[in-house]
Amino acid sequence: MTYSLPLAAYQAARERIRPYVRRTPIAPALSLTDEMPSQLRLKLENLQVVGSFKPRGVFNTLLQRTPEERARGVVTASGGNHGVAVAYAAWRLGVPALVYLPATASDDRVGRVRAWGAQVVQQGHNWDDAHTAASAYAAAHQLPYIHPFDAEETLAGQGTLGLELLDDCPEIDCVIIAIGGGGLIAGMADALKQSKPDVRIVGVEPVGAASMQMAINAGRVVELPVVRTIADTLAPRAVAERTRALTAQYVDEIVLVDDADMIDSMQWLWLHYNQLVEPSGAAVIAALRTAKASVSSCQQPVALICGGNADAAPVWSRYSERAASLHNS
Amino acid sequence: MTYSLPLAAYQAARERIRPYVRRTPIAPALSLTDEMPSQLRLKLENLQVVGSFKPRGVFNTLLQRTPEERARGVVTASGGNHGVAVAYAAWRLGVPALVYLPATASDDRVGRVRAWGAQVVQQGHNWDDAHTAASAYAAAHQLPYIHPFDAEETLAGQGTLGLELLDDCPEIDCVIIAIGGGGLIAGMADALKQSKPDVRIVGVEPVGAASMQMAINAGRVVELPVVRTIADTLAPRAVAERTRALTAQYVDEIVLVDDADMIDSMQWLWLHYNQLVEPSGAAVIAALRTAKASVSSCQQPVALICGGNADAAPVWSRYSERAASLHNS
Repeated sequence: MTYSLPLAAYQAARERIRPYVRRTPIAPALSLTDEMPSQLRLKLENLQVVGSFKPRGVFNTLLQRTPEERARGVVTASGGNHGVAVAYAAWRLGVPALVYLPATASDDRVGRVRAWGAQVVQQGHNWDDAHTAASAYAAAHQLPYIHPFDAEETLAGQGTLGLELLDDCPEIDCVIIAIGGGGLIAGMADALKQSKPDVRIVGVEPVGAASMQMAINAGRVVELPVVRTIADTLAPRAVAERTRALTAQYVDEIVLVDDADMIDSMQWLWLHYNQLVEPSGAAVIAALRTAKASVSSCQQPVALICGGNADAAPVWSRYSERAASLHNS
Repeated sequence: MTYSLPLAAYQAARERIRPYVRRTPIAPALSLTDEMPSQLRLKLENLQVVGSFKPRGVFNTLLQRTPEERARGVVTASGGNHGVAVAYAAWRLGVPALVYLPATASDDRVGRVRAWGAQVVQQGHNWDDAHTAASAYAAAHQLPYIHPFDAEETLAGQGTLGLELLDDCPEIDCVIIAIGGGGLIAGMADALKQSKPDVRIVGVEPVGAASMQMAINAGRVVELPVVRTIADTLAPRAVAERTRALTAQYVDEIVLVDDADMIDSMQWLWLHYNQLVEPSGAAVIAALRTAKASVSSCQQPVALICGGNADAAPVWSRYSERAASLHNS
């Protein structure tokens, strides 16, 4: 079977979520040095509300619930950005939300979810554990479970980024997209290839969490025995059959990057564009800088900066210390 | 006398520097909460090359030197962003550059200047000390001294931001701009008020370095006995007569913000737009959040985020530690 959605589903999602999400900017061109292809453009989705693409899928999901359904509340599990997006969208729409996070989630992430009034339960070592617990709770209480990537409404929401890119750069001929559970790349690829079949689509995964590449090679979803990467938002142990199938159908190539490359590329984005992003947001830059992804034959390639929620707490500490020492001296 | 430049000087500067600087984006609207006026827009000049507005003035200056003059090199003194801009523009144009920085400049700033091949001399406790030493060196060696704010070419370059804002938001009726030596606000105000006299212009200074407010009140340049603020790029002890006179002529109001307000607003910009900026870049947000500047009567106000070069080193350290612990465990 195909999981492809009609183009109209992406267009409808775009209209539905328009009042709630931002049309994010394309970074002005002109890298400081010539080390990157000069035709490369960056789509700064880290400027999206709550700092990642996730609210697109979440708003598209919640806005299709009836008022009665919304009033009863929703449940989700997240390694980070999806949970913050559910918490924010639920706050915005007046929906009670229960967010399961792994016990290992940073204080920063837990705080961001709680800041929007969501209830947090911390359980398990990683997203998969939290997902199992949250799904069970939702089933027992007959509440909708908002899956971060394996749902039609989520896919349609993330795919709006494909349509937006076509408006931003009608001449786009290549796009580079990071892969976690695959909802973003599957939705974008489905919307893009239906609109413009010649667009080349390159996916990027962490070496330590290559669940999509494994699944594509195996022809079925494969569960990794272990994931090991600092890109916590790209690290589910397994993708979904839905996202695997769409990726197999539409994505031209998958490349892998390691943690050191992502940290290096976080610094590159900071030096060249003053954008502080999380490791997953820099994965596409790492793929280019290590020449694992090549765009030299493309006229109008775009790298999607999918998320920005880096842990900035050490910066505030440093400035607060500096102010204290200045004013108490 | 008036220091006002003909509008044509700003237009010529804009054409001159166009191949070397970015047209920076306006942040998409939609704050996460309703605490800010919903009509407020942010001009993200932190996305400019080398992370601040400074290259506009520097390129406008260097591009008007003859090849012979350029070959001999230039000298400047800077608390930070101007020095990086001179180093970068000099590298780009093949000009030798000597940059004086105060001995107190952070390793990060010194590194950024050196990264572009400029020679660094560290001297004195603050910008004014470095400026005195650099000016003496330039005079002794008959080299051009590139002043960070007190020069016609610098003013014309910074004023290009005013013309760009008019293109971005033709309906603009208010702009909020941070003040250090006053080159940015003077150039922008001169270009804006000649183009659209009704635009309201609000300046923002740190409480601990209110050299422009003092000068405006006194009707002449006043040297502060001491400056004390974490906004090191807004902290010269005195403005220039040129920038004072233009500010007196064109700027409607000056408000003051303290260091705690700026740190709080750095966090606000991070939470709402995932933009990490330096304290001076957040000063305009601090003025709004503390209600010292009001835009409630404006239809299309814009806050200029003038610089982004925060000290992000603690972030890289944290991620590198995390990766090391993950991969060595």
